[in-house]
Amino acid sequence: MLNWNNTDTLDAYKKMLSLKGQVKISEVLSAERVKTYQGKMAAGLVYNYAAKEVNEQILTVLQQLADEAELTEKFKALYEGEVINTGENRKVLHHLLRGQLGKDVVFEGKNLRQFYVEQQKKIADFADKVHSGKITNEKGQKFDTVVQIGIGGSDLGPRAMYLALEGWAKKNGKLKMCAKFISNVDPDDACAVVNSVNLETTLFILVSKSGTTQETLANELFVKDFLKKANLDPSKHMIAVTSESSPLANNPGYLASFYIDNFIGGRFSSTSAVGGAVMSLAFEPGVFAEFLDGAAETDKLSTQADIKKNPALLDALIGVYERNAQDYPATAILPYSQALSRFPAHLQQADMESNGKQVNRFGKPVAYKTGPVIFGEPGTNGQHSFYQLLHQGTDIIPLQFIGFSDSQSGEDIVVDGSTSQKKLCANLSAQIVAFACGKSDENPNKNFPGGRPSSLIYGKSLTPKTLGALLAHYENRIMFQGFVWNLNSFDQEGVQLGKVLTKKVLAKNIDGALKEYADLFGI
Amino acid sequence: MLNWNNTDTLDAYKKMLSLKGQVKISEVLSAERVKTYQGKMAAGLVYNYAAKEVNEQILTVLQQLADEAELTEKFKALYEGEVINTGENRKVLHHLLRGQLGKDVVFEGKNLRQFYVEQQKKIADFADKVHSGKITNEKGQKFDTVVQIGIGGSDLGPRAMYLALEGWAKKNGKLKMCAKFISNVDPDDACAVVNSVNLETTLFILVSKSGTTQETLANELFVKDFLKKANLDPSKHMIAVTSESSPLANNPGYLASFYIDNFIGGRFSSTSAVGGAVMSLAFEPGVFAEFLDGAAETDKLSTQADIKKNPALLDALIGVYERNAQDYPATAILPYSQALSRFPAHLQQADMESNGKQVNRFGKPVAYKTGPVIFGEPGTNGQHSFYQLLHQGTDIIPLQFIGFSDSQSGEDIVVDGSTSQKKLCANLSAQIVAFACGKSDENPNKNFPGGRPSSLIYGKSLTPKTLGALLAHYENRIMFQGFVWNLNSFDQEGVQLGKVLTKKVLAKNIDGALKEYADLFGI
Repeated sequence: MLNWNNTDTLDAYKKMLSLKGQVKISEVLSAERVKTYQGKMAAGLVYNYAAKEVNEQILTVLQQLADEAELTEKFKALYEGEVINTGENRKVLHHLLRGQLGKDVVFEGKNLRQFYVEQQKKIADFADKVHSGKITNEKGQKFDTVVQIGIGGSDLGPRAMYLALEGWAKKNGKLKMCAKFISNVDPDDACAVVNSVNLETTLFILVSKSGTTQETLANELFVKDFLKKANLDPSKHMIAVTSESSPLANNPGYLASFYIDNFIGGRFSSTSAVGGAVMSLAFEPGVFAEFLDGAAETDKLSTQADIKKNPALLDALIGVYERNAQDYPATAILPYSQALSRFPAHLQQADMESNGKQVNRFGKPVAYKTGPVIFGEPGTNGQHSFYQLLHQGTDIIPLQFIGFSDSQSGEDIVVDGSTSQKKLCANLSAQIVAFACGKSDENPNKNFPGGRPSSLIYGKSLTPKTLGALLAHYENRIMFQGFVWNLNSFDQEGVQLGKVLTKKVLAKNIDGALKEYADLFGI
Repeated sequence: MLNWNNTDTLDAYKKMLSLKGQVKISEVLSAERVKTYQGKMAAGLVYNYAAKEVNEQILTVLQQLADEAELTEKFKALYEGEVINTGENRKVLHHLLRGQLGKDVVFEGKNLRQFYVEQQKKIADFADKVHSGKITNEKGQKFDTVVQIGIGGSDLGPRAMYLALEGWAKKNGKLKMCAKFISNVDPDDACAVVNSVNLETTLFILVSKSGTTQETLANELFVKDFLKKANLDPSKHMIAVTSESSPLANNPGYLASFYIDNFIGGRFSSTSAVGGAVMSLAFEPGVFAEFLDGAAETDKLSTQADIKKNPALLDALIGVYERNAQDYPATAILPYSQALSRFPAHLQQADMESNGKQVNRFGKPVAYKTGPVIFGEPGTNGQHSFYQLLHQGTDIIPLQFIGFSDSQSGEDIVVDGSTSQKKLCANLSAQIVAFACGKSDENPNKNFPGGRPSSLIYGKSLTPKTLGALLAHYENRIMFQGFVWNLNSFDQEGVQLGKVLTKKVLAKNIDGALKEYADLFGI
């Protein structure tokens, strides 16, 4: 039996709090430490934590915390199908999308790994037929563009993943269709996308697990209206990704339907049909499979009990130390890769929606801080923007750097003796040390206090496989932190009240302040 | 003589701190309060602060703080040309770009308002000639695309402004050229943009005040290399926006050059030639002028000493109350308009780079918190993402909502009895009340504590004029907060150390941890 306890009842947690402020990075950071304070991730990536505020004593306590809180045991229970999302009485099975880590997971007589693999094959077959021209529009023309209609987890993850690989695919001749995304209920979003594509040769993917998402259904009808006005048959231009019990399932209004189930949370659905449909259509077959392989490799590492062999777990625990012992309010995600431009926005959802909670998994208020604010933009852009506050502001914000030796395009130019890619990596290296060590200056305005902790995930280049490994690293980091904080990281009750009140506004079933706000907008 | 004192020496500030936690929004929010707790902004916009944690007593103290800290007097000194950016010995004149608020500002015999207006006219004339085909490429073809090369303030503001008006301009037949942006030194950024345009008919705008920005110069040569490979003459495809003393000025390598000066900070340069060149080329003449008119109207309101007549000042002071009395660590910017998708990223720079500082304008450490972390995404997208933490997380994050009654495109569809635009506004109204009032539930997981303060800026629609008014509101809010905190909001020494270390890495003039990090990337 697993023990689900609030972390402040654990001995290791109390020990961890007593180690607040123990490490001054500027005093300990050395070449030797950069070499040794790192661990192998999946797909050739490396997690380096030399510039984090940890030492052997703290790492020992973090290992004790991992053990005492039974973190890898809880992960095992999760991937073997225990109902971890207790609030919604659901299993949590996104790991099963990319591999079989433990025993079979069977639900209502169905082997779920088989079900997920079957959906992947169906999608790959469908994509093949679209690419080869066996499935075409009503005029027999090949589709050249795919537009995903979805919001939240049906948008941010798939969009970030597509953007991460678009340039790579172009360079390697693996881009089969251009992809775009419609998410916001603001009609200007759908309007801009619809006007930027050739509707005749565009295939839309409607993504909603429940089939009832207000924004997505409104955007579906918006798009269908445009298709009809262009004398196109919507049922020949749209596929659905949904659950088998949704109104969108087996619906002749769609060219095809692909399925997920309630055990795949929206923000963890990039490796399901939600990400799989758009990635399989946009890219050559094989790309999505490689992406899944990278994620599966990370998942396997994440089963290790030794924190030095399990970078997602170690990263999670260092984050807990930063949040609860060091009391830092936010974390910045800083990828030095333009292809990862929307990766921070995806992690913002994945993390803040999972662990931004104040009651534990049994509904009792917790007495410690849980998930921090997550934000970020790609470097070097951020250096010319919010890094000022990161370097010299009154709060310390822990940083998560990501970088690659090689660019995706391979196109480059030597200016002042170095390529742009070298400049990019030089900036990244320089920032880590500047944040950690600072620099004294007799002009206090030019004084850098340092002591700003950061980690670095690095690798040779951003490919489908490294992207999958990177994504799963963060997904598992979030899961482990949720376990430490004793949260249910897999529900999102905090989004419900707004939905209820919105319906009331639209039904004009309101008075008081809410009516007055609605009146401001003439509703 | 103005008094520049740390805010914690002021009586009003101390009084303000004593009013911590005084207002429970859920107890005070009413229809009446929504009607009365609002003030007219420029261009028909309204600033509503009914859901902020203030009451008449707190507002009185905030007025006292404004008076005691001489906030509008300091603004007057600023716009009349006093050297407010003392660290760099510079005037701060972005307000002069859009109007003459006080006496003439003359520098080295030059009337600066005349200089700025002259540059605007030059840009408008140049844009006219490009639009009419008087200025063409070397083959006599009209340019149809404009690509801005710049980073930080030369990218985020202009990009956010262009995106804010692209759909509006399309709808109103005022889109003359499509605009794109290259910023990151990551070569994949430039590569993706260059490959997405027809180089033959593309005009590039190189933007660097100093003419020495590493990223921008690398990207310039990257683009020129591509132009040459396409047998195009780079000097016929590129204009420069820079200062008169930069190496880019009066350079025959450019088709034309337009000027700013050292009194226009990068993050406040959207209303200068930095934003003016791309906006004048992309849009019909008149659009940029309307944008400036909106900003000028806000500036005029910002001279008012009465906080109830000066929304930027009031918004700034409420933010100070939230940061220093309530101790909130971050602020979220939540525009319910897809056109404002990059507006939060621009404000992230404008705010965090200006006020993310720990020494006052005289270089002495301050003993209070200064600028918060700023982040945000458009609604309703954010509702399906990080709003979970905003509603139920362990930190309270103040919110800044922005919304408009009408969409830009006018394209819409009725689903379940309401248009998408109505749904958008209904969601916005519902969120304000959900955050403020919460909702008790016997299931603690479904309990919403409320007490999450928000403001709302609303108007009829997002146009060039309302956009200018909105931008200047935030610029002035940042300025006033900097005055309260006694900071120099107009330098950015915090970005320098990274630059110095990067040069050392590229020169391989390093050892220790920095060399080891560089080695990881094979530099």
